[in-house]
Amino acid sequence: MNRSVFFISDGTGITAETLGHSLLAQFGSLKFDQFTLPYIDSPERAHDAVRKINAVAAEDGVKPIIIDTIVDKNVRKIIANANGCMFDVFETFVGKLEEELGVKPNNTVGKHTVDTLAYKTRIDAVHFALDNDDGARTRQYDSADIILIGVSRSGKTPTCIYLAMQFGIRAANYPLTEDDLDGEHLPKSLKEHKNKLFGLMIDADRLIAIRNERKANSRYASPQQCQQEIRAIEGIYIKEGVPFLNISEMSVEEIATRIIQETGLQRRIN
Amino acid sequence: MNRSVFFISDGTGITAETLGHSLLAQFGSLKFDQFTLPYIDSPERAHDAVRKINAVAAEDGVKPIIIDTIVDKNVRKIIANANGCMFDVFETFVGKLEEELGVKPNNTVGKHTVDTLAYKTRIDAVHFALDNDDGARTRQYDSADIILIGVSRSGKTPTCIYLAMQFGIRAANYPLTEDDLDGEHLPKSLKEHKNKLFGLMIDADRLIAIRNERKANSRYASPQQCQQEIRAIEGIYIKEGVPFLNISEMSVEEIATRIIQETGLQRRIN
Repeated sequence: MNRSVFFISDGTGITAETLGHSLLAQFGSLKFDQFTLPYIDSPERAHDAVRKINAVAAEDGVKPIIIDTIVDKNVRKIIANANGCMFDVFETFVGKLEEELGVKPNNTVGKHTVDTLAYKTRIDAVHFALDNDDGARTRQYDSADIILIGVSRSGKTPTCIYLAMQFGIRAANYPLTEDDLDGEHLPKSLKEHKNKLFGLMIDADRLIAIRNERKANSRYASPQQCQQEIRAIEGIYIKEGVPFLNISEMSVEEIATRIIQETGLQRRIN
Repeated sequence: MNRSVFFISDGTGITAETLGHSLLAQFGSLKFDQFTLPYIDSPERAHDAVRKINAVAAEDGVKPIIIDTIVDKNVRKIIANANGCMFDVFETFVGKLEEELGVKPNNTVGKHTVDTLAYKTRIDAVHFALDNDDGARTRQYDSADIILIGVSRSGKTPTCIYLAMQFGIRAANYPLTEDDLDGEHLPKSLKEHKNKLFGLMIDADRLIAIRNERKANSRYASPQQCQQEIRAIEGIYIKEGVPFLNISEMSVEEIATRIIQETGLQRRIN
């Protein structure tokens, strides 16, 4: 039977979920039914949450796990009365942090004000990624922080978007086409920005699978075509001295983090 | 003086950072210098990390805060010897979880395998958001989970991308143009999918500021134009019964979470 887990927050619930996913991944042999309850920021909503938890507890016949990041102590106390096993993140850490920092926590949070500059940086980076996706244009490369290159469907687009959304990094991407690959060279528009280039590499079997999802049984998805493109692009990376990374086993988060680590690229937001 | 904070992980560091940001937000009166050290997954790298922490400690004259999500106990022990104040997330929670779940943690993590189905769902959703951005096409609306509408620069694009990246939701967006707004009606292509529509609303002063960043002193960014568009679109939302949300004070995460909450939209990945 799956164990039920509740992520509860007075905000979006993203912190509780992110932490919860990491913790549950430590118990990979078990399966979990996950429920996120965001915006539990009043006693009324906390009582609603308790009713939901108790209903699941009754159905499961076993206490759900509760991972919460609620700031308000009174709201937290209500949740603590639910029929669950509670992991109270702020209760656990904020006291020790208060001691170490010598400052009282401002218990009013949950509603954080939007940092206007960070918001703008981030949104601009997202629009930059979209405008410069898939080699759509190259004249903005002067203002790119990084330009990802790779064969079609090697993960360039999601990585650029993640770099923009998470770190405010202005990332363009350019697919190397058959012409480039046959000629064993970088296009002129890329050569001019060689110091910004980073290559994505992918295993043939993974590429074949991904392309078959898109265009089943096409030449584009054929083992021969995929293998040939991969060999050619690896040759170009090596010949041109473009740093590259095999992303076959990585999530988008990992690709982005590895690229930052390997290039020393600076984040624009924290 | 800013207090230094290290986020340390054997993986990307995203969990340590996300949790850390939430905790530090509780101490809004202080400023922090933040360092993320990802992929600290061996004794050698842990010793490197300790040297970095100790150097910062010496420079600051005060212990840095350390928030870590390292799985391996031996690596963690090395970090614990650094001259810092350590908040050890897994040490804190995994023992109690183990007790509650009655299963040993698989201490090998940090390197999680990619969930292929979730990866595909997510990447497909990102490509869907891009293909259906800004009203570029409407013929895929049958397979959209949601269609965001709003005036230009009211946050539609980043929200769609976030919904795709975080939740695997297939989100299209369509800007209501002056013609639509003047006519006080929804375009035909939207009317057909009325049950999928969700409107974004924004305060005039925020819209004026955002548009001025883009095209300073233009008619597009003028108070009169912005106010008129906002009045018109609110009229359409109300007349057509389109649910809507004022996003002026919200981060992209909050907009996405609120939309899910208000529409009951199902996530496609957890």
